[in-house]
Amino acid sequence: MSVAVLGCGLIGESWSALFLAHGLDVVAWDPDGGVLAALPERVEPLLGQLRALGTMAAQPGRLSVAPSVAAAVGGAGWIQENAPENTAVKHGLYAAVEAAAPPDAVIASSTSSLTWSDLAAGVARRDRFVTAHPFNPPHLMPLVELFTPDAGTLGRAEAFYRGLGRVTVALKKDAVGHIANRLASALWREAVNIVAEGIADVAEVDAALVHGPGLRWSVIGAHMAYHLGGGAGGIAHYLDHLGPSQERRWATLGTPSLTPEIRRLLVDGIAQEAAGRSVATLEAERDRGLMLALAARRKGGEGTAAEGKTGEGERR
Amino acid sequence: MSVAVLGCGLIGESWSALFLAHGLDVVAWDPDGGVLAALPERVEPLLGQLRALGTMAAQPGRLSVAPSVAAAVGGAGWIQENAPENTAVKHGLYAAVEAAAPPDAVIASSTSSLTWSDLAAGVARRDRFVTAHPFNPPHLMPLVELFTPDAGTLGRAEAFYRGLGRVTVALKKDAVGHIANRLASALWREAVNIVAEGIADVAEVDAALVHGPGLRWSVIGAHMAYHLGGGAGGIAHYLDHLGPSQERRWATLGTPSLTPEIRRLLVDGIAQEAAGRSVATLEAERDRGLMLALAARRKGGEGTAAEGKTGEGERR
Repeated sequence: MSVAVLGCGLIGESWSALFLAHGLDVVAWDPDGGVLAALPERVEPLLGQLRALGTMAAQPGRLSVAPSVAAAVGGAGWIQENAPENTAVKHGLYAAVEAAAPPDAVIASSTSSLTWSDLAAGVARRDRFVTAHPFNPPHLMPLVELFTPDAGTLGRAEAFYRGLGRVTVALKKDAVGHIANRLASALWREAVNIVAEGIADVAEVDAALVHGPGLRWSVIGAHMAYHLGGGAGGIAHYLDHLGPSQERRWATLGTPSLTPEIRRLLVDGIAQEAAGRSVATLEAERDRGLMLALAARRKGGEGTAAEGKTGEGERR
Repeated sequence: MSVAVLGCGLIGESWSALFLAHGLDVVAWDPDGGVLAALPERVEPLLGQLRALGTMAAQPGRLSVAPSVAAAVGGAGWIQENAPENTAVKHGLYAAVEAAAPPDAVIASSTSSLTWSDLAAGVARRDRFVTAHPFNPPHLMPLVELFTPDAGTLGRAEAFYRGLGRVTVALKKDAVGHIANRLASALWREAVNIVAEGIADVAEVDAALVHGPGLRWSVIGAHMAYHLGGGAGGIAHYLDHLGPSQERRWATLGTPSLTPEIRRLLVDGIAQEAAGRSVATLEAERDRGLMLALAARRKGGEGTAAEGKTGEGERR
């Protein structure tokens, strides 16, 4: 069984590296022949990162490129779709997939902003269709958010991604932005507001996050943090005593608009924070930091306070 | 010169350990004689954590307890106030401090929910007063958020806390919740909303955060993440192409109230996530995870993509 990777941009190349590192053969397709031809070269440094992390199988998978969707999915047991976030484009792709894929193959969409319901409308075998949203970059970030109403396909998806060392989180119902991007969007709204109100500049907001709540949320979740904030009485004590003050604070948070003036503050602020570093350099620094954090987690072995049953995949 | 620690609850004991580990003598006071008497014993395990992290000075400071505010601050160069979050209580304390402290001593308040303006109204020498908000637990978390309108005192505060290996972030103006707790509050509002709307349970929300955006925000800030999300065109490209979709997503985020029903969902959800682990056990797991993450940062040496000039303190 091979994995078909459809769409080979940033997400597709990162998925490809993860699959290969875990010994799965990948057959990739992209409508842009240039992107497809360059894929093996672009995947190589990502494989190097996974090798450095110690997550490379003794026998890595083989990467091949396919001239058509039909050729990519013909022998596939799993199909990871990373097409542009456009419902019509994805529906067109699913029709081509279903015409050629084995009937038991699962189609998994990496969609970040569309929902299962949006996309399943263009799928004939909906019981084999799942949204499987990774967090960028997927070969390093553990999270995969899943939704499908089919319990059997959900179980297959959990087993598949956990087998790749991922942490799967299943939604109880369809939601735009799943969980993680809703949280990220809510936080960023206030991060923009703090800049817009002149409380702090972009670099200071980012530094406060990285050295404060971001660091803590890499270890325990937001709900658990308030549980510990309640002392021996936990979250019940917290809600009874500080719930009202939280509601008052919520009322003071901002609802900024991305006006030209705020856009300028954000662009100028990032230029100051980047201090001449290119996007490629910043990405390399991010990956280096993520790899150190992931290595530290592995060293921690039995996981963190926030890891309940959903975290088991990472501990294999 | 010694450091006076006024108020010896969770925050005061953690500050004490940090000061002692960096070779500063601490004179502590608390209105509760029992709390004060138990302080040396409670500080010991925190010092053990700092020893394990490799941040213990060859000559640690000495810890003593004082029978009165005057005795605590009489020989102090720095005064760290951790009294309850009550303006009148803090104002009363500042009057006692100013009657006995050396004129050049700085009074630093650990307040999380009050502002410099609220508190300075009860201080005679406002040019020596600064809010210095740590993130819990202060002996492990790098962030200290500072505000004072006095440039000289701000400079002294930055030097003092950076000398303790902290990362300081200065606000441009007074704001309730400073930066970090505004961000945390904004994120938690949506975390509560996701539970309230039935999209996912508490444990799943926390797992998504810890293995997704939390992990990423421990390495790069939220603004920087969108800069990298814009590809080679950076945040300008992101705002031009995806700014409108972010504004649409902001409009879909929730504004929950902490009703009895939602309170029950949160309390039950935490019970499920904790799976029988006590608050003390969960705190120990949190600290263990933080120590691993901090050790990984030290290994990274030159810091992460989000660290601009504000990050230098940690690299000493």
